[in-house]
Amino acid sequence: MQLKIEGDKDSRGFEDSETAYDYRHEGVLQCVASRLGWLVFFFCGLMLAAVVVEAFEEVLKKEVELSYFVPLLIGHGGNTGSQAVATMIRALALGQVGMQDLFMVVAKEGAAGVIMGTLLGLCILAFSFVWSGITPAVGLTVAVALPVVSLWANVLGAALPILSARLGYNPAVTSAPLMTTIVDSTGLIIYFYIAKWILQL
Amino acid sequence: MQLKIEGDKDSRGFEDSETAYDYRHEGVLQCVASRLGWLVFFFCGLMLAAVVVEAFEEVLKKEVELSYFVPLLIGHGGNTGSQAVATMIRALALGQVGMQDLFMVVAKEGAAGVIMGTLLGLCILAFSFVWSGITPAVGLTVAVALPVVSLWANVLGAALPILSARLGYNPAVTSAPLMTTIVDSTGLIIYFYIAKWILQL
Repeated sequence: MQLKIEGDKDSRGFEDSETAYDYRHEGVLQCVASRLGWLVFFFCGLMLAAVVVEAFEEVLKKEVELSYFVPLLIGHGGNTGSQAVATMIRALALGQVGMQDLFMVVAKEGAAGVIMGTLLGLCILAFSFVWSGITPAVGLTVAVALPVVSLWANVLGAALPILSARLGYNPAVTSAPLMTTIVDSTGLIIYFYIAKWILQL
Repeated sequence: MQLKIEGDKDSRGFEDSETAYDYRHEGVLQCVASRLGWLVFFFCGLMLAAVVVEAFEEVLKKEVELSYFVPLLIGHGGNTGSQAVATMIRALALGQVGMQDLFMVVAKEGAAGVIMGTLLGLCILAFSFVWSGITPAVGLTVAVALPVVSLWANVLGAALPILSARLGYNPAVTSAPLMTTIVDSTGLIIYFYIAKWILQL
């Protein structure tokens, strides 16, 4: 009988801790305190992206049209990489993939990224012929950069959850923001190097 | 006995459909087919962001330093708005908030966004005095834009899940990508208007 009561207490205690956090009773400063840590971490990653753009200032000054596609390149990298992360987290949870499948997974996700990036890049290239806002040379730059950035984002999105799980971390918590933070800066480096090469800047 | 067998069949059938999708047996083209729809939808939103940057080309040409913070502004807007979305989805699921709380929720999330944006903006302003890459005037522009974009992102992040739930949609599926897509374009419009005002461009 005593055991049963203890059991009930424990059960109630657990439920309380699960639902103890009630949004209605949380003040604005508590909201801030609980969220600022991660926001500052991501913010440092975004500052890195600012430093990368600054490093290619001369390229941007020579061809300001390149700046139009900065949100598109890193936004698309984050989107396609997130799809790879979500697919991997599900496959890991179901035991369908593990460390031994790393090469297969990276190859498959990378190939999917290249195909989707190429299709979307061709749309941008076609668009550059009808939109007066950009020259076809800039359209070609974006069309070449999209599959490369997509490849890189999907490789990271596939590898990070598997490596996280292997190292004992919960892949669902860290993989997506880490992938996005890496792609924001490195995706821009890829974009500007391709621009320098194609536009001969 | 027959009932039990039927029950077993149903149970097995349900499990099969739950786990039928096995990543190991999915080809690259199947990956592409299942993901391209959403990617194209987000891509259209990112094209809008490209059109917005193009519309402010003259501002960027006069002050190229503004382009350094384009990834930071929209990246931070997406991050803080996602925190608001995630908090709302949890509070909705636990029945802690509903349509009648819309004003309270939007006010609380908006205030949290302004406070966090102001703190991070002050960091950028301080940084602009020590980093040779940007002038303090551009630092001030970003410092003013960050709390405004954060306010807007958190208001959307708070309102969209509640409005989605009210309209009968699953708030967990649509709210985060819709918020990000809106913030990408509108956040840049806010940033460039503040830049025109502060830098007198």
